[in-house]
Amino acid sequence: MMKRIAVFTSGGDSPGMNAHIRAVVRYALHKDIEVFGIIGGYNGMIKGELIPLGRRETANIISLGGTILRTSRSMEFMTEEGRAKAAENLKISQIDGVVACGGDGTFRGAHLLWLEHEINIVGTPGTIDNDLFGTDYTIGYDTAINTCAEAIDRIRDTAGSHGRVFIIEVMGRHAGFIAMDVGISCGAEFIAVPETVTDLDILNERISQQGEHKRTIVIVGEGDEMGNASTIAQIMKERYNIDAKVTILGHIQRGGSPTVRDRVLASRLGVAAVDALINGVTDKFVGEINHEIAYTPLEDAYSKKKLLPQYIIDLSELLV
Amino acid sequence: MMKRIAVFTSGGDSPGMNAHIRAVVRYALHKDIEVFGIIGGYNGMIKGELIPLGRRETANIISLGGTILRTSRSMEFMTEEGRAKAAENLKISQIDGVVACGGDGTFRGAHLLWLEHEINIVGTPGTIDNDLFGTDYTIGYDTAINTCAEAIDRIRDTAGSHGRVFIIEVMGRHAGFIAMDVGISCGAEFIAVPETVTDLDILNERISQQGEHKRTIVIVGEGDEMGNASTIAQIMKERYNIDAKVTILGHIQRGGSPTVRDRVLASRLGVAAVDALINGVTDKFVGEINHEIAYTPLEDAYSKKKLLPQYIIDLSELLV
Amino acid sequence: MMKRIAVFTSGGDSPGMNAHIRAVVRYALHKDIEVFGIIGGYNGMIKGELIPLGRRETANIISLGGTILRTSRSMEFMTEEGRAKAAENLKISQIDGVVACGGDGTFRGAHLLWLEHEINIVGTPGTIDNDLFGTDYTIGYDTAINTCAEAIDRIRDTAGSHGRVFIIEVMGRHAGFIAMDVGISCGAEFIAVPETVTDLDILNERISQQGEHKRTIVIVGEGDEMGNASTIAQIMKERYNIDAKVTILGHIQRGGSPTVRDRVLASRLGVAAVDALINGVTDKFVGEINHEIAYTPLEDAYSKKKLLPQYIIDLSELLV
Amino acid sequence: MMKRIAVFTSGGDSPGMNAHIRAVVRYALHKDIEVFGIIGGYNGMIKGELIPLGRRETANIISLGGTILRTSRSMEFMTEEGRAKAAENLKISQIDGVVACGGDGTFRGAHLLWLEHEINIVGTPGTIDNDLFGTDYTIGYDTAINTCAEAIDRIRDTAGSHGRVFIIEVMGRHAGFIAMDVGISCGAEFIAVPETVTDLDILNERISQQGEHKRTIVIVGEGDEMGNASTIAQIMKERYNIDAKVTILGHIQRGGSPTVRDRVLASRLGVAAVDALINGVTDKFVGEINHEIAYTPLEDAYSKKKLLPQYIIDLSELLV
Repeated sequence: MMKRIAVFTSGGDSPGMNAHIRAVVRYALHKDIEVFGIIGGYNGMIKGELIPLGRRETANIISLGGTILRTSRSMEFMTEEGRAKAAENLKISQIDGVVACGGDGTFRGAHLLWLEHEINIVGTPGTIDNDLFGTDYTIGYDTAINTCAEAIDRIRDTAGSHGRVFIIEVMGRHAGFIAMDVGISCGAEFIAVPETVTDLDILNERISQQGEHKRTIVIVGEGDEMGNASTIAQIMKERYNIDAKVTILGHIQRGGSPTVRDRVLASRLGVAAVDALINGVTDKFVGEINHEIAYTPLEDAYSKKKLLPQYIIDLSELLV
Repeated sequence: MMKRIAVFTSGGDSPGMNAHIRAVVRYALHKDIEVFGIIGGYNGMIKGELIPLGRRETANIISLGGTILRTSRSMEFMTEEGRAKAAENLKISQIDGVVACGGDGTFRGAHLLWLEHEINIVGTPGTIDNDLFGTDYTIGYDTAINTCAEAIDRIRDTAGSHGRVFIIEVMGRHAGFIAMDVGISCGAEFIAVPETVTDLDILNERISQQGEHKRTIVIVGEGDEMGNASTIAQIMKERYNIDAKVTILGHIQRGGSPTVRDRVLASRLGVAAVDALINGVTDKFVGEINHEIAYTPLEDAYSKKKLLPQYIIDLSELLV
Repeated sequence: MMKRIAVFTSGGDSPGMNAHIRAVVRYALHKDIEVFGIIGGYNGMIKGELIPLGRRETANIISLGGTILRTSRSMEFMTEEGRAKAAENLKISQIDGVVACGGDGTFRGAHLLWLEHEINIVGTPGTIDNDLFGTDYTIGYDTAINTCAEAIDRIRDTAGSHGRVFIIEVMGRHAGFIAMDVGISCGAEFIAVPETVTDLDILNERISQQGEHKRTIVIVGEGDEMGNASTIAQIMKERYNIDAKVTILGHIQRGGSPTVRDRVLASRLGVAAVDALINGVTDKFVGEINHEIAYTPLEDAYSKKKLLPQYIIDLSELLV
Repeated sequence: MMKRIAVFTSGGDSPGMNAHIRAVVRYALHKDIEVFGIIGGYNGMIKGELIPLGRRETANIISLGGTILRTSRSMEFMTEEGRAKAAENLKISQIDGVVACGGDGTFRGAHLLWLEHEINIVGTPGTIDNDLFGTDYTIGYDTAINTCAEAIDRIRDTAGSHGRVFIIEVMGRHAGFIAMDVGISCGAEFIAVPETVTDLDILNERISQQGEHKRTIVIVGEGDEMGNASTIAQIMKERYNIDAKVTILGHIQRGGSPTVRDRVLASRLGVAAVDALINGVTDKFVGEINHEIAYTPLEDAYSKKKLLPQYIIDLSELLV
């Protein structure tokens, strides 16, 4: 039986993590379960930095970006000793179950905690990259794509005024979700993502089609096989004598007040994660597929590749 | 075979209509189909106000709120003569198929055009209310809920500073989608929607639980059975001696640059609507269900009731 | 000599109050002065609700709307007994000087505290209305006008799509600053403010000039002599048979993250207020005129009328 | 007498240029003066690309970023032949006066047009950098600083969650206005601008003061003598072993819907520029100083250095 659970955030922060923490806390209290927050992800677990969380600690955080529990990437947790220390701390604090909000690295660790120390643990998708198998959307993705689109709409003003080619790099690690959704919604002339072949001849053609006033927006997802935005700009110069301005949106993509979808998803998955622990679920990733809560083995969540939907790839070509 | 199609927007305007028009035009051109825009909805159809639409007319509109084709509610189209005139105009202009973007009133008209005059016509969901059977989301809904949430986050600043009760009315006609998603995402203490019983005793209790500093946010969807925000405020005063401030968000909910989800949905459904016409589909509503394109008879789209998902109703109670 | 000062916010809250509190605290600490915050304005002063404020309490608040010290309108402080109790509490807590952030009601009270009890006190302009004599801008004004403009830009989308007349009411009490700046920047066809004669014949003419598609934006400042937005809409209907939609922007105008100008002004005036107290200034309002810090007797600040600049009135006519 | 004037935008685009064009056109029409727009700055002047501008062409542009007249940097105009051709075109088109909206390069050109060809011309401040002598603010500056602050508020979420040092580069050319206002309003721990000595020992101390959780925001203005953000990050690593993340805000700073202040300033200066031409003013820069319209010789506007106000420099130190 669950009497006391812990929640933490890990990996890159994403908007909606606070809404998620709030939901875990409020719903758990509703079920007469105590909640502790672990500070700074796996590092805090190793150091035993747990703080009690109640309604007061989670008041007014639903609209805040970042995570009040902080986050980090832990080297020590990658060692067996680190994980043993972490598990020990959880046991000392009489934690019956853990909600781990993060990305694939987070889930690898969570899986090992279960495997090696039988810690009841479920993962929830806290990453802007949307690259987790077992959920349609991750917490923070919707905010990130809107932040990007707003930034790029600004750049389009300048691109249109000057008749320039802009190559804009967005996040996404090895997945093109952000680049695709953002590129389509900003009417980009060209979108380069890891999942598809990036043919710069086609880009060159499209720039030519723009006529003398060559206002062109190119979106490049991190991890594209042709390289990052700067590399592509260089190739465009060398190969086609095209001058392009490069903008790397960078860390503005991680922050900001979460959108409604991110707040609702974060809230729903917070409730679902606590329900899962109550129902004896462990070693599972709790996501949302086709509007239903779905459990996926943690191993699958980090090892299986989530594919870009075909309709998105099609859209990126059909509306240019 | 489709050689020439028309597109129009009708009913209340919603953000993403322009992105939708752009997608219809660009994809149709891609398929060697000419596109005309009908100005001002069914009124323009009756008056024969059609203009050719090309890449130039739809450049740079993907990020604009409102609709470049304008919209209206037409009394004349509700008469047989009106519809006959409209159909006549479409035939004179050699329009082979029509994309009708709007809400249930729009679809009623579209269905009659097909029934009475065999005009090939498909409907697409252009309304902020999300109340159309046959699609998970409507074009404009995502933008509207984010506009609401942003406005309410502002009011929360004041509510918190003054320790006040705020009753905020949002749109939605007879459906509580907007109120629910917005209420959950703003951490509202109480959400009143037409689909559930609104018990003001519970609201009174929750205000009391806030303690001396009674900062409380109440979201009321239009169409709630207890009445609108002002009525509820009056009852709270008379029955419980609670002073509450009323804010009616009003028409700010309809405008603004569309969110990424609305732009992508609008784009996708624009392509799907043209594809439907090409494939001989008519008298159908083109929506998106579980990420797939779905056709629904126009009659069902306006006569069947789309239900609030149970999980949303649950969330609205569990996190208070 | 100042060893310990207090700061409070009073009247309607305004964005930037938190940035102001932060500046008072940080600069005072810099000068080795302790700072206390009074909770809930004059009410808290009467009840003796003072809390120590340091760097930690004011960390990360520069971007937050509302006021962490809360605010209220106090009836009790309007009595001599109330003020005596308040002064007593300040003396017990050994407060050497007070920074009072608010509007004219706040300054009336502050002036009496000085007059009746020789409390060293300076006022700073915390109101969105910009209606205080002795400063070019008030803290919160810039945020409020941008919030309004953003909301009205959304309504313009709908007004343009439907060809409708919109009458939009903004705040400002007896002053037309908000209405004027917002109306000019939204390209309003008509702006009604208390300072000028509101001639609805002219409004009617301008609506006619818009042609058949009568998209018209009318901005009405609270306190206009023709009445509020609803009254004007009613007159337009009765007298000219014009249908108009009414929107009252309401409390969204008070909240939100402050703009850069509001944060910088709030910061600068926080430093200036502490400097004033250190220099033995009391019973003065600390504002900014032509980019310089200016002291004005508190009595003047609330009794003298700040005029709308003529160029603003001219602009509102010349660009229609 | 002015019967026909021209307006153009030149140099980097800035938000509010469209509001400015609109004001020039509307006010000129009001004074029975015809207006032509020159496309693409001095390049368009050389090519004779003038288009008539009326109410219709400038409808609904007040809220748009960028410039409908486009802009460019012209090499050819730097030659005597180029300027002669440009002047010839203006004379052929019977242009009696010109409004040149841009920055110092624009004014250099305008001054030469007057000097060499007696073209009546006045300059208006269209640049985000705020670095023009003869005006308190430039058109676009207010929007740019708010865009920056919003972006940096997002990064602060991440910085706080991870406990990281962020070095963020903003625009401003050789002037620190943007960096200072933005840095102060985001509560930056350190602000590096060309106008002050950048001492990285102090930065290092401030990072240390943040304790173990070293969340630190550093704002670097372009043109700082220590180099750009990447250089400073490298020095911090080499000299103090501090790891810092670098973000270059880039071109998002130029675009976006203008703020109220920018729209009002742009409108006012549009009227003032036309008035200046009507009154026979030429070879002058039309700015706003202490809320009054001020004329400055074009030569001074580009050759004299506008200083950072001392209070801004002080604020950047006092609130850290």
